Amino acid sequence: MSDYAAPIADMRFVLNEIVGLGEIAGLPGYEETTPDLVDAVLEEAGKLAAEQLAPLNHSGDREGAVYENGVVRAPGGFKEAYRHYVEGGWNAVPFEPDYGGQGLPWALTSALQEMWNASNMSFALNPLLTQGAVELLQSHGSDGQKAAYLPKLISGEWTGTMNLTESQAGSDVGALKTRAVAEGDHYLISGQKIFITWGEHDLAENIVHMVLARTPEAPAGTRGISLFIVPKFLLKEDGTPGQKNDLRCVSIEHKLGIHGSPTCVMAYGDGGVCVGYLVGEENRGMEYMFTMMNNARLAVGVQGLAIADRAYQHARAYARDRVQSKDIAGSAGPVPIIRHPDVRRSLMTMRTLNEAMRMLAYTAAGVLDRGKRHPEEAARQRNQAMVDLLTPVSKAWCTDLGVEIASLGVQIHGGMGFIEETGAAQHYRDARIAPIYEGTNGIQALDLLGRKLLRDKGAAARALIEQMRGSLNALQAAPGEDTRAIRAALERSFDTLSSATGWIVEAGGRDLRLAAAGASPYLRLFGTVAGGWLMGRAAVAAAGQLGQANGDGVFLAAKIKTARFYADNVLPQAQALATMVTEGGTSTLAIDEDQF
Amino acid sequence: MSDYAAPIADMRFVLNEIVGLGEIAGLPGYEETTPDLVDAVLEEAGKLAAEQLAPLNHSGDREGAVYENGVVRAPGGFKEAYRHYVEGGWNAVPFEPDYGGQGLPWALTSALQEMWNASNMSFALNPLLTQGAVELLQSHGSDGQKAAYLPKLISGEWTGTMNLTESQAGSDVGALKTRAVAEGDHYLISGQKIFITWGEHDLAENIVHMVLARTPEAPAGTRGISLFIVPKFLLKEDGTPGQKNDLRCVSIEHKLGIHGSPTCVMAYGDGGVCVGYLVGEENRGMEYMFTMMNNARLAVGVQGLAIADRAYQHARAYARDRVQSKDIAGSAGPVPIIRHPDVRRSLMTMRTLNEAMRMLAYTAAGVLDRGKRHPEEAARQRNQAMVDLLTPVSKAWCTDLGVEIASLGVQIHGGMGFIEETGAAQHYRDARIAPIYEGTNGIQALDLLGRKLLRDKGAAARALIEQMRGSLNALQAAPGEDTRAIRAALERSFDTLSSATGWIVEAGGRDLRLAAAGASPYLRLFGTVAGGWLMGRAAVAAAGQLGQANGDGVFLAAKIKTARFYADNVLPQAQALATMVTEGGTSTLAIDEDQF
Repeated sequence: MSDYAAPIADMRFVLNEIVGLGEIAGLPGYEETTPDLVDAVLEEAGKLAAEQLAPLNHSGDREGAVYENGVVRAPGGFKEAYRHYVEGGWNAVPFEPDYGGQGLPWALTSALQEMWNASNMSFALNPLLTQGAVELLQSHGSDGQKAAYLPKLISGEWTGTMNLTESQAGSDVGALKTRAVAEGDHYLISGQKIFITWGEHDLAENIVHMVLARTPEAPAGTRGISLFIVPKFLLKEDGTPGQKNDLRCVSIEHKLGIHGSPTCVMAYGDGGVCVGYLVGEENRGMEYMFTMMNNARLAVGVQGLAIADRAYQHARAYARDRVQSKDIAGSAGPVPIIRHPDVRRSLMTMRTLNEAMRMLAYTAAGVLDRGKRHPEEAARQRNQAMVDLLTPVSKAWCTDLGVEIASLGVQIHGGMGFIEETGAAQHYRDARIAPIYEGTNGIQALDLLGRKLLRDKGAAARALIEQMRGSLNALQAAPGEDTRAIRAALERSFDTLSSATGWIVEAGGRDLRLAAAGASPYLRLFGTVAGGWLMGRAAVAAAGQLGQANGDGVFLAAKIKTARFYADNVLPQAQALATMVTEGGTSTLAIDEDQF
Repeated sequence: MSDYAAPIADMRFVLNEIVGLGEIAGLPGYEETTPDLVDAVLEEAGKLAAEQLAPLNHSGDREGAVYENGVVRAPGGFKEAYRHYVEGGWNAVPFEPDYGGQGLPWALTSALQEMWNASNMSFALNPLLTQGAVELLQSHGSDGQKAAYLPKLISGEWTGTMNLTESQAGSDVGALKTRAVAEGDHYLISGQKIFITWGEHDLAENIVHMVLARTPEAPAGTRGISLFIVPKFLLKEDGTPGQKNDLRCVSIEHKLGIHGSPTCVMAYGDGGVCVGYLVGEENRGMEYMFTMMNNARLAVGVQGLAIADRAYQHARAYARDRVQSKDIAGSAGPVPIIRHPDVRRSLMTMRTLNEAMRMLAYTAAGVLDRGKRHPEEAARQRNQAMVDLLTPVSKAWCTDLGVEIASLGVQIHGGMGFIEETGAAQHYRDARIAPIYEGTNGIQALDLLGRKLLRDKGAAARALIEQMRGSLNALQAAPGEDTRAIRAALERSFDTLSSATGWIVEAGGRDLRLAAAGASPYLRLFGTVAGGWLMGRAAVAAAGQLGQANGDGVFLAAKIKTARFYADNVLPQAQALATMVTEGGTSTLAIDEDQF
């Protein structure tokens, strides 16, 4: 029995009504994306997640990945589950058909990512890293490199890793010291990398490490970083894995969560003969990394959503099952705790935020699809600017909420939530990594501030806010009191976001530190308002479908009420966040360092 | 080397300037509380916490308490540390001198509780439970029971436990089934209790279990519960521990945190001969429990503060030490991350909330002292009403913030925060229990709503709000721009709290479920505004002292800026919370249970 069921009805609603998957299917290259195929993909993926991956989530946490003499063993069952995943063709879904990909949109892929991560986040991290390697090679690899590595990485027979971090180089990637010295057609790599997710394991016959390193004459900082392919096993003439490369896993970390996913310290070139192959040109490694980083950040945002939905399903089941105390308004005997208004508030909070996150994350992926595939250059650019803007918001907002919602999930369980056997605590532990990796949420906030707002003086943000305002008319026209109340709350929140955006652009021009002190609440404000906008659109779509013969009336009515809850209980935070941005920065910086 | 230092300067400031310890020392029975004694107590307790308890926090987490055949071993070092604690007389500080207590105020005790819990929360839980047993016996035990148990419990040579929860009776204590059948001068107890903190261990020569059970003819629910003393070892004629009673620890829980503290499943009377002694009268057990529960809830609030301050100290040290990336406004090289505005915001958030929590928790304890010791009956009643009001707020607000602040602490550490060796993750795990036990925070919110607001139609709350308003004049009179800005923000927040209080009282009269749907945001609003009020008073006190010759100018100036940060960055949430209370309830309850 699985305790996870993919929320396919909501996923389909979001993809069709909010993301416009039908329109995306009309873009060149996405013709395969028929409604029948989408339905089949969601159903089958849901089965794999519920039947194969979810049952290994708790056992994987308890067992953890195990390190012994350079060998890393994944938890029991992971190997077989990974084989199912590969054999089902799931790894190939979003990649280019030239090398075996299925060429389906990222919008659809994001729903699958939600399922893999909700059912088993530790497991799902492995394909997530492989995805990064595929994207790097698709964009920047030579034809030979593509031919050698892409088919196996796309199928999932081999997995990929990202090697950026060193002990002195975390958020400041430019401080890395791993060396790469040219020797003939390859380079010799030497150095140690930390926090390498699935850096070593026994699930695949080869592991393709994408490693950032510096050549001897490279300039300092991020401008002197090059990118290398460093396979665990060097390829033989026939392309199959041959000799072991000079690299090894030195240890794995003892972590708060994601215990099933080995986090490796990797040593390259201890014997002096670690072979790496340059991707593209020297010193352009960071630039290449950014081509995959945006998408990886969107995927981590999906993780925040995923773990939050798992926590919600867990807590909902407990709240229905656990009978305790009478109804406050009177009842014959004790009632399931879902009936208690305070528990209901927690569940509604989880529910509405999850639905909003789902829309934001899938929408960003859909905009990415348009940015890649739209036939018109101007539209591609417009969509690319939009996804650039949405990426840090989706990553940070969804992962911060993932932690908060997992915490609520523990709370709903009461004392049982603190007992590891229950499983709620695992979500609370697992969720905590997502605000940290792939660029901490502080880094996301600075990215939003610097690269996304100050660089274009707020143009993309203002364009999005105008797009948001465009949804107000439909809310006005929709029937019922709820949509009118949502409209009023939204209009206020758009004004609030607009003013705060203006302040950031203005303050950024005169006092960068002051503007940066407001970066995190600004990002949260942005996510909160964008989530409200999408909930408003969902309410309009639901109201429109409610009268139709084939609509699921219960689902649609609940959607409108959930949007109303967002307007009444989440959107009010917008004004407080804006005040923190515009008024709170000076006192943030008022105390000297040595007074702490 | 300890990584914890008790914040004695701030503790002293709060006790003297906010709580009015000098005035409390003038109450009958507290004459011993001289300034010199207070200083000595704080200094010595700080040493014990830093030198003996803090170094065992991480090792205690890693080792955990160990269960084997009914025997529970505390983690290494705990036994010796507990001996130091007992020999130093620390356990006796707040108790009545008749049985060996030192008779010092709870306000001072709350500072010590902060130290014990910040340095080692798992360790500190043991005395916390003993405190409950002492209070129960002080108030409701017979003279014989007091003479037999109090001296040893007060000294700490024996420890106490609270046995309320059974698997079907958590928040709904009235559903408990443990039986007590009278036999001669005692009762025979039979039943199983869960979640018994320090229910079995090897730190003391006897354990005195306070057990709730039902006699055969008892009425259903909470009106049929009686309280029993059930010692691990029955006492011999000479009062020393003799024969083992028929009770045992069946297992200990595998928990998210507080691993050093065994959480026991206790079986009473499996052999049919578990001896218990009735406390007071039959069927009054719940009433007795409430006499100690308020104080225990205040102590759990202190735990929230304590773990938050430990997390803050941890993160602050890391932020000073970790060098990464240049200053956003330009710098020659990478800087300590404490210089980055976003990290500074996190640290300031932790700092200001911790200072506010400290004032609220100690203030509540000071009001408790006045409620116990004031020579005038009317003043005792007024103070008792105030502490009744502050108790759920302090418990829930401080423990929710404890979790949030521990989470911020992990985040400041970046990737290292997710590695267990760093220690930040332990605080995040440990903190999570405090919103759950001693009445979940949802229960606290309902207690505030029902017993504290609706019962007196908001009278005590309005009295407190009026008292808060009284601080506005002093802010007006204080020099400087900061105090004026704080005043303006505070006045708005008082109005907001006042309106929300009026709404709760009104709504509670016509629709209890609707009012209850706003209970949690109302409690958070109350805590937020009360914290702001106390920060405002702290700013006034600091501004007043700044000009004095013997003031610590750096400390005082930072206090004012920290209060300003609270006004700019925390108080703005008040309006959002009030909207959730007054507008958010209907949509909270709008969806039927089966639509979740």
